Amino acid sequence: MNKLDSLLTPKSIAIIGASPDPNNLARGRLIPALVQGGFTGKIYPVNPNHEEIYGYKTYKKLIDIPEPFDLALIVISAKFVPDTFSDLAKCGCKFAVIYSSGFSEVGGEFSNFEEQLKSESIKHNIKILGPNGVGFLNVTGKVSATFSPGASLGEIPRNLDGVGKRLVIVSQSGGLGFALYQRAVTRGLAVSHVVSTGNEAGITTLDIVENALEDEMVGCIALYIEQLRDTQKLRPIAEKALAQRVPIIIMKAGRSSASQRAALSHTASIVGSDTAYEAMFSSLGIIRAFDQQEIIDLAAIFTTNKNPLGKKIGVISISGGGAIWLTDSCSDLGLEIPEFSSKLQNQLRNFLPEYAGVRNPIDITAQSLNSDINVRTLELLASSNEIDILAVVATLSEPKLLTKDKSRILEIMNRTLKPVVFCSYTIPKLSNISDLHDCGIPNYTSFTGCAKALHALWKYEEFINQRTEWKIPSIKTPKIKSSLNRNWTESDLKEIYHELTIRTPISIIAKNVDAALTAATSIGYPVVLKLQDPEIVHKSKVGALALGLETKAELIEAFNKVRCASKVKSDSPILIQEMISAGLDVIIGTVRDKDFGTMIMVGKGGTKVEEINDTRLYPAPISKEEAKILIQKVRLFDTLLSDGSSRSFDLDALTDVIVKVSAFAVNNEHIIDEFEINPLRVFSPGHGVIALDGYMKTLAYEELHKNV
Amino acid sequence: MNKLDSLLTPKSIAIIGASPDPNNLARGRLIPALVQGGFTGKIYPVNPNHEEIYGYKTYKKLIDIPEPFDLALIVISAKFVPDTFSDLAKCGCKFAVIYSSGFSEVGGEFSNFEEQLKSESIKHNIKILGPNGVGFLNVTGKVSATFSPGASLGEIPRNLDGVGKRLVIVSQSGGLGFALYQRAVTRGLAVSHVVSTGNEAGITTLDIVENALEDEMVGCIALYIEQLRDTQKLRPIAEKALAQRVPIIIMKAGRSSASQRAALSHTASIVGSDTAYEAMFSSLGIIRAFDQQEIIDLAAIFTTNKNPLGKKIGVISISGGGAIWLTDSCSDLGLEIPEFSSKLQNQLRNFLPEYAGVRNPIDITAQSLNSDINVRTLELLASSNEIDILAVVATLSEPKLLTKDKSRILEIMNRTLKPVVFCSYTIPKLSNISDLHDCGIPNYTSFTGCAKALHALWKYEEFINQRTEWKIPSIKTPKIKSSLNRNWTESDLKEIYHELTIRTPISIIAKNVDAALTAATSIGYPVVLKLQDPEIVHKSKVGALALGLETKAELIEAFNKVRCASKVKSDSPILIQEMISAGLDVIIGTVRDKDFGTMIMVGKGGTKVEEINDTRLYPAPISKEEAKILIQKVRLFDTLLSDGSSRSFDLDALTDVIVKVSAFAVNNEHIIDEFEINPLRVFSPGHGVIALDGYMKTLAYEELHKNV
Repeated sequence: MNKLDSLLTPKSIAIIGASPDPNNLARGRLIPALVQGGFTGKIYPVNPNHEEIYGYKTYKKLIDIPEPFDLALIVISAKFVPDTFSDLAKCGCKFAVIYSSGFSEVGGEFSNFEEQLKSESIKHNIKILGPNGVGFLNVTGKVSATFSPGASLGEIPRNLDGVGKRLVIVSQSGGLGFALYQRAVTRGLAVSHVVSTGNEAGITTLDIVENALEDEMVGCIALYIEQLRDTQKLRPIAEKALAQRVPIIIMKAGRSSASQRAALSHTASIVGSDTAYEAMFSSLGIIRAFDQQEIIDLAAIFTTNKNPLGKKIGVISISGGGAIWLTDSCSDLGLEIPEFSSKLQNQLRNFLPEYAGVRNPIDITAQSLNSDINVRTLELLASSNEIDILAVVATLSEPKLLTKDKSRILEIMNRTLKPVVFCSYTIPKLSNISDLHDCGIPNYTSFTGCAKALHALWKYEEFINQRTEWKIPSIKTPKIKSSLNRNWTESDLKEIYHELTIRTPISIIAKNVDAALTAATSIGYPVVLKLQDPEIVHKSKVGALALGLETKAELIEAFNKVRCASKVKSDSPILIQEMISAGLDVIIGTVRDKDFGTMIMVGKGGTKVEEINDTRLYPAPISKEEAKILIQKVRLFDTLLSDGSSRSFDLDALTDVIVKVSAFAVNNEHIIDEFEINPLRVFSPGHGVIALDGYMKTLAYEELHKNV
Repeated sequence: MNKLDSLLTPKSIAIIGASPDPNNLARGRLIPALVQGGFTGKIYPVNPNHEEIYGYKTYKKLIDIPEPFDLALIVISAKFVPDTFSDLAKCGCKFAVIYSSGFSEVGGEFSNFEEQLKSESIKHNIKILGPNGVGFLNVTGKVSATFSPGASLGEIPRNLDGVGKRLVIVSQSGGLGFALYQRAVTRGLAVSHVVSTGNEAGITTLDIVENALEDEMVGCIALYIEQLRDTQKLRPIAEKALAQRVPIIIMKAGRSSASQRAALSHTASIVGSDTAYEAMFSSLGIIRAFDQQEIIDLAAIFTTNKNPLGKKIGVISISGGGAIWLTDSCSDLGLEIPEFSSKLQNQLRNFLPEYAGVRNPIDITAQSLNSDINVRTLELLASSNEIDILAVVATLSEPKLLTKDKSRILEIMNRTLKPVVFCSYTIPKLSNISDLHDCGIPNYTSFTGCAKALHALWKYEEFINQRTEWKIPSIKTPKIKSSLNRNWTESDLKEIYHELTIRTPISIIAKNVDAALTAATSIGYPVVLKLQDPEIVHKSKVGALALGLETKAELIEAFNKVRCASKVKSDSPILIQEMISAGLDVIIGTVRDKDFGTMIMVGKGGTKVEEINDTRLYPAPISKEEAKILIQKVRLFDTLLSDGSSRSFDLDALTDVIVKVSAFAVNNEHIIDEFEINPLRVFSPGHGVIALDGYMKTLAYEELHKNV
């Protein structure tokens, strides 16, 4: 038995604060919602002012209820909620859904109610969904424990059967969760559960996801989140989902400062760093969406339960314009629409009208509407090995258009392993959507939406296949000992680079001008001077750096100037270094994210890293294969690699350093606070890289104690 | 009187090939469509086999019709169509809509029918709409001259009145045109005309656009095109549209090779170079869309007839999650959601619930649903100068939600100059859409779609304002004389660069080794050698180039080697050139586009230009201001400029060269076939540019004669 069963599939429910007034938005609507939703278990309203509500005997107090019950729905004022828990425990109740608002999302004293709630919940071992949510809807189990008007959709058919799988929706915003449900059902998707988690004082989004993964009928999970409160669970749950091939689609809100302002007062979310979330999502194959229709478009293809072998699309259309439009949209995303072999073209010509286009896209022309040649085309292509996915452009605005062909289409779908989608350029009628759903075919109402979904399907497949080859290499890295010396100088770091076999410039420490001159002669002009002062992080800003010194005279002048920049003492050592030729300047660093731990950072380097804002994160440790994917997410590298080769820089050497730095950071993760090589100069292919400057901050003993 | 009046608003119509069979897709549906569409003029069916069709007296021959008529609708076989024109002329008919297929889109002998059609049309001065189209719908004039099922939308209200303007749809694909109509009307837009132009044997897409611009009620024009057949009209018509502030939205199909394959057999379109079209669109403020919903989203905001003064958005939401989502979507596109002043926040607090967010976005909370505070918030913000645009996030799935507030909202909208939009996260009911339309407020069903539309609105406004400052500078450029010498060498081009004041490396021509050594000494080592041979376009590929020669010995060896690469004769001159330091390599060129004439090309330079595929076109001549916009469209420059400054390269110097080259190309446009500087090396700001190599192809006398 599933551990959330008593919550999502209860046999008996008490409703604390139930009201007989149907105009009362929350309190008056829960019982009718349960009844209309088909709930067949017991209902116990609790309200001291009524004998009976909606025909159900009503209890003055919880403990008056004669039998134990599974679930409590709580719709009373926030401040009274914590007091109910000891009685709930006496009634044998294990779960409570708290709809009431006025907790931590308001702040101030209201946050105390939430703290009380949590401690009562732990004390009495009663798990909480909410507060500040709109409850849940279990469509398959017929439990409509929500007052959201979005839960009842009138005549729109809920297509729970069919050859595909089901969608679970979890949302930190109740309104958006049920809006998504409405849109999904209207598009013919089989939705099994919608859960609003609110402030997540107990049960979290990831708890619901974990639970959904135990249901083998679930084919896809869609989330709206502002933050995850149990970030450590993300990796194991996402990996389980990957293993089961159940894609997780996430809309993560709060990317801008203006929206972060709003999130705090909405579900009390301190919105996490978007770049860290993005890094986690991309490393775990979680699909990020940015629009409601996009979520539905993706969920529609992922619940069909068919996996393509490649990205070759066959397009069948009754409209020439539609064929062209979908072909463009697919091509834009890198999907292929291959020209058919002459053999296949001839087979198509056998039954298609004289003027039909048969090269792919196939224009079967509007004349075909009154015949069965659309089905014959589908049949032929479904069994062809020239394509991996089939997309049909149609007009589904006439009702019952597919009814006559439905059994033949179902037969084709039962036989083929290829995903098939329909894309209607007119607004489709529900009956056609339903017929398609029964055959396991999603329908799209947007050419670009359809293409994006096919692209995501192929990318997910590719991700799963690639991932099996990712291996985190075992790399011997230096072990840093904690010390009070917190800012490391370049020469300190040099040893670390050396142990990591990252090349550094030839350089010699000099304490006076004579030593500097000797060093320069041995290195060879031109040289570079760098002051070694732990207090100075950005050398170029304070004149602690001199480049391109060609002669002895220049060296002497520069030496005296650089020395003056020292903050600590007048005899700080100065590094004499070979001058390095031009290349691509990259930053490689590590950060400790408060939510997700050590992450590796890669981006365009130089002194303006923050302004340029072209860096990407990825959870450490990283494999070579992932490092190469990460590199391409940096805009600069993507632009440079856009000719399909890596002519402009040494991709392999850069990858190598990323992997080493990530291993180094993970092996010292409680000691290193920040680490960066900037610039790492990257030369043309085969010419490697060189670490020109760097920075490391380690944690002192007392901080270590706080952090470990 | 408008010149297309007799076509789009005829008083009498003959239907050649009319049939009484309602199952006949085209022939049997035209009369019912006209009648149901409310046509009140005269209808003359022509069919030798019937006395009466749908109650209308039917004529055996055209010339039997007793009175002159305005328009002929022709639905007979392609091959018989040309023969009808002499009789049409006798009947005083000026326009014919030809629905029949089987013309140039099929190819072969069928193309002849189209040629005959054209010559008959010219001979008898009868203008053709079609063939291979589905006719047109004039909603305002009640002329439904189409058999498209999409023209009759059942109960969906056509919102032709209201405070906004109207949309005209023109499509080379009839199916897609009427699908767009269905979507537009369902979203509450006022559509006045839908025109399917088919193969465009006579009247073109641009003719319809030109005609629509004469109707002051038209606020926006949406097009689906595969190609334009009268490209020379694009500029004057687009400029007229800009002057009238009537945005043109274009879906241009045929971007990929696979879709180009299909376009030819669809409407006989030789799909033009997409990059040239893109260049024209961006220079003329034409808005390009890629999806049907995107077209509607854009048309919805552009028909409201309100222009924003800036990009500051005030977001009002009844859902906290919805507020955050829309705010993110707007921020992603660079729109601002400013935090309100404390004065405005206090004014809002006066009437909003205690827990409402008032900083912007405003979360008025679901409690506000039963009061008028949503309208009060709208009222307050509509008159605030802290924002330019108002976006309301709502749930419009309950019918008649806005009816009670409609008159107050209308009052607000009549007073404010600010655009206001609604965005519903649930699927909106038609009644609410209609109420909003009446108030001049478009509704969106997608957060990203809403944000994109607001962004496009602001960008259009910005474009119109910027454009007034664009001035093509008058630049004196060298006049090229045509000659048979068609491939110009670098030293020939050097004079042109000199006259255009574009810097080139110091270089001296040497015919032998001794002269080369003297030259190198005078220039200073290191030097570069380049063979001057008009037959060699890519020097590095054939060894006609030597870089970084440091000594006399290296120079002598290289001189002899490079000379061997000559194809023509063993004593081709060799250029001795100063070695230029590193920088950004750019290509600047000109091309003669078959559709749109001389265009300037800018992009990432070097030897791999084709593979890198990071160049952009723009019609020449170009102003400095446009050149700067163009530069940012090149991916490489966009990446480099992404820190908001131009630190990485000399933007002004690059701009200057683009403007000069464009002027040069335009002033010699019948002589220069191709011209490029590649690489133009661009240094850091203030350090200018230098033309390192180049190429020009001029047309010989006989070709000039063909082209002028």
